[in-house]
Amino acid sequence: MRLSRYFLPILKETPREAEIVSHRLMLRAGMIRQQGAGSFSWLPLGKRVLDKVCQIVREEQNRAGALEILMPTIQSADLWRESGRYDDYGKEMLRIKDRHERDMLFGPTNEEMVTEIFRSYVKSYKDLPLNLYHIQWKFRDEVRPRFGVMRSREFLMKDAYSFDLDYEGAKAAYNRMFVSYLRTFTRMGLKAIPMRADTGPIGGDLSHEFIILADTGESQVFCDREFLELSVPGEDTDFANDAEIGGIVKQWTTPYAATEEMHDEAAWGALPEAERLSARGIEVGHIFHFGEKYSKPMGAKVAGPDGKDHFVSMGSYGIGPSRLIAAIIEASHDENGIIWPEAVAPFDVALINMKAGDAECDRACDELYRELSAAGHDVLYDDTDQRPGGKFASADLIGLPWQVIIGPRGVAVGEAEIKRRRSGERFTAPLAEVARRLSDLSA
Amino acid sequence: MRLSRYFLPILKETPREAEIVSHRLMLRAGMIRQQGAGSFSWLPLGKRVLDKVCQIVREEQNRAGALEILMPTIQSADLWRESGRYDDYGKEMLRIKDRHERDMLFGPTNEEMVTEIFRSYVKSYKDLPLNLYHIQWKFRDEVRPRFGVMRSREFLMKDAYSFDLDYEGAKAAYNRMFVSYLRTFTRMGLKAIPMRADTGPIGGDLSHEFIILADTGESQVFCDREFLELSVPGEDTDFANDAEIGGIVKQWTTPYAATEEMHDEAAWGALPEAERLSARGIEVGHIFHFGEKYSKPMGAKVAGPDGKDHFVSMGSYGIGPSRLIAAIIEASHDENGIIWPEAVAPFDVALINMKAGDAECDRACDELYRELSAAGHDVLYDDTDQRPGGKFASADLIGLPWQVIIGPRGVAVGEAEIKRRRSGERFTAPLAEVARRLSDLSA
Repeated sequence: MRLSRYFLPILKETPREAEIVSHRLMLRAGMIRQQGAGSFSWLPLGKRVLDKVCQIVREEQNRAGALEILMPTIQSADLWRESGRYDDYGKEMLRIKDRHERDMLFGPTNEEMVTEIFRSYVKSYKDLPLNLYHIQWKFRDEVRPRFGVMRSREFLMKDAYSFDLDYEGAKAAYNRMFVSYLRTFTRMGLKAIPMRADTGPIGGDLSHEFIILADTGESQVFCDREFLELSVPGEDTDFANDAEIGGIVKQWTTPYAATEEMHDEAAWGALPEAERLSARGIEVGHIFHFGEKYSKPMGAKVAGPDGKDHFVSMGSYGIGPSRLIAAIIEASHDENGIIWPEAVAPFDVALINMKAGDAECDRACDELYRELSAAGHDVLYDDTDQRPGGKFASADLIGLPWQVIIGPRGVAVGEAEIKRRRSGERFTAPLAEVARRLSDLSA
Repeated sequence: MRLSRYFLPILKETPREAEIVSHRLMLRAGMIRQQGAGSFSWLPLGKRVLDKVCQIVREEQNRAGALEILMPTIQSADLWRESGRYDDYGKEMLRIKDRHERDMLFGPTNEEMVTEIFRSYVKSYKDLPLNLYHIQWKFRDEVRPRFGVMRSREFLMKDAYSFDLDYEGAKAAYNRMFVSYLRTFTRMGLKAIPMRADTGPIGGDLSHEFIILADTGESQVFCDREFLELSVPGEDTDFANDAEIGGIVKQWTTPYAATEEMHDEAAWGALPEAERLSARGIEVGHIFHFGEKYSKPMGAKVAGPDGKDHFVSMGSYGIGPSRLIAAIIEASHDENGIIWPEAVAPFDVALINMKAGDAECDRACDELYRELSAAGHDVLYDDTDQRPGGKFASADLIGLPWQVIIGPRGVAVGEAEIKRRRSGERFTAPLAEVARRLSDLSA
C-alpha cells in the first residue's frame, strides 16, 4: 500500500482524554477514532490489526473443533425472560423498543440465543459434543466507559458455547478451549497465564481468566515463575485426544497463579521466594463452565444413551479482540510508539523513501515495493513528500516490525538500511537482497 | 470438514412461513435460523457463504482503491441532527436511549458518521480522492420484514463513501465503483445489469441500481439483450486510469436498461423487437452521487489548489451481502435445492460415503478426503450413517458444485462417481485421479 493513497491520520499531539498508553497510541497512530462515549471507529490501520487478531482467534477455535456461526446483535427480550436474566441484568443492558413497542436489547452476550438455537435442532447425545462460536459486536452500557477500546461500550467479542451430555463431556470441552486459548495468545506474541477465577454460585473449579503481564496492567496478579518457562502446545496437538488435552491443562493449572481476588497468601507464602512473580496483568480471555444454568430453564435437553432426556451441560468461552489489541499494545510498546508482534502487525514492512521525487530513490523504492510484495510481505510504502524525520517518527509510532530505509547515499552504492523496530538494531543490505533477508529474518 | 462433526441442521419439511424460494432453501439447508421478526442467525453453512461473498466484495473494493474501515453500529443522534436526518428518517430508524437518557440509534446507514470522520482529519485536496468503506450490520425497522434475509431488519451492508474536490473527481470515483460492481457480481457468477435509478432532488444521472435477472425477481425490468453479451472488465483493469474506466462505464450505460420506475415506453419501443429483454430482476447494489448533501450542512471541506475552501463532493455505494446471498439462490437453484456458483459455494465438494462403516468405503473416503483437502479443495465429507438416498438429497439441497460418491461397487473396481450439481452430469474416475480431475474441471 502506498501511503499517498492510504488514510493514516497520524496525530502529532497526544490526545488529552486518553488516560492509558494503548489508548494514546491507538489514537496517535490513526488506528481508531472515538465516535461517542465508549464507541470507536476502526480506521484502516486499526481494521487491519483487528482482522489479523480475529483470524488467529478463528483458526484456533476451528482447530479445537468449534464451529463458527453469526448471531444478530439485536435480541428479543422474551428470550432473556426465559432465563430470568432480562430483569437481573441491570443497566448495563441496552434495552430497546421497536416500532411495534416490542422489547428488544442489544446483546451483551449470547447464552440465551445460542441455547435457543441448540434446543431447536439437537435432540440426541449422538450429535454431541458441539461448540458454536461467533465473533460479533456486543454492547454493555457501562456507567463510565474509558481506556479506549480496553473498556468501551460497543466492543467485539468472540464467544463460544459448548454443549455436552454430562459433566465429563463438558470438562473435556472446557479443556479444549483452555488449550486453544494458550495457542491463540501465544500466536499473537503474548505470554498469557491462566488463573483460576471465581465460579460464584456455579461452584467447581472450571473457570479461568487468561492474564497477560504488562507493567501498565489493570490489576495485580501473583504466579509462579515456572509459567514463563512452560511450553505452549504446538500445531500438532490432537484436540480429539481428551487425555492429551487434559494433560496439558493439568500442567498449566498446577503451579500457583491467582488474581488479587482469588489470591491465597498461605499458598503464595509456601512458594520459594525466587519463584514468586508478582506483577500487573490484563485479562484477555475468560472461560467458564456453568452446567445447566441455561439449559434447565430453557429446556435444552438431549436423549442420552440411556434413552432418557438430559439437560445439556454448557460452558462459555470469551475473547474480546478489540480489547485484546489494546492489551497487546500495553504489553508491547516503547516511548516512540507501538511495537507489533509480527503475527498481528498491520503491515510487515515500512518502506521509507527518504527523498521522494528523487529519480534514483523513487526507482529503487518502486522496485523494492514490487519485490517485497511479490515475496509475500505486506508493505506500507511511504512515498509522500514529508521530511525524513517525520517519516521515521511515524514508522516508529505505528510500529511495523521492519523498516526499510532508502536514501540517496545508500542508493548510490546500491544499499538499503534495514531497521528492526523491536530492538532498534540497524544493518545495511544490498538492494537486491532486501527481500530475501527480510524473509529469512521473519521466518 | 466431516459432517459427523459439523452442525448442519437440514429441515425435511418446507417451512410454512417462507414465501420465496431462497428463504425456503436457506432454512431447509440449515444456513440460517430466524431469531425474531426480520432477524437471523447464520449457521455454519450460511456463515461460510457470507464470508466468501464479503471477501469478493472486499477484494474488488480494494482493487478499485477504496479503503476498509469499520464504524460502530450505534450512533449518536446529535450527528444525525447535524444533517437534519434525525427527524426526517421516520420509523425505520431504531431509536435508542442509553442509561444517561442520551439519544442514540442503530445505524441504518453511515453518511453522517463517515463525513464526521472525514472532516476531522482531511483538510487539503492533496489527500483526495478518498473512498472509505465498511462492512457492518445495519438495522432498519421495516413495518413488515419478510422474504428471509432478502428483506430483514438487521442486515449486513457494504457501504462505501467517496470524497472528492469537485464534480469531475466525484464522477471518476463513481465510475470506479461502477466498474468495481460489475467485477464483483461477475465473480459471484451473476449477470448484473446497471440500470439508471431515480436521483430525486439531487438530480443528474449518477445513480445506478445493479439488477440481476431471476424468474422469481421482485420487480419488472427492461433492457437491451446486448447486455448479455457485454464483456466484463478483467483483473488487469487500471483503476487509476480515469479514461479507461470512463470508457467501460459508457459502454455499460449506452444500451437501454430500466426498472419499471424509470421505464420509458418510447425508447423501449424504438428498440428492435428481437433486442428487447423484459424480465424479472432483483436489486443487488446501488451507487449514488449526492454531491454536497452532507458535506455542506456538516462542514466537510478541504482547501483546493486555489487556496479556497470547497465542500467535498460525495457519493455512496452499497451492496448488501446478506441480501445478495438470497438473490444468488433466487437466480441459481432447481427443484432439488441450491446450485452454488463455485466462487461462493460454502464447500467445493460433497464427498459422499454411501456405506459408512464399511472398511473399504471408509478407507477410500478417508484417503480421498486427505487428497482433496491437500489439493486445496474445501470438502464436506458425509461420513454419517444416514441412508444413501438421504445423503444424495442433502447434497443436492445444499448445492455444492461437485459430489464425489463412493460406494462398495465402485471401490471394488477402484472407482468413484463424480456428479456436477449444476448440470446433473455424472461420470466415473479412478480413485487416484479424482483430485486431479476436479482441479482441472474447477479451473
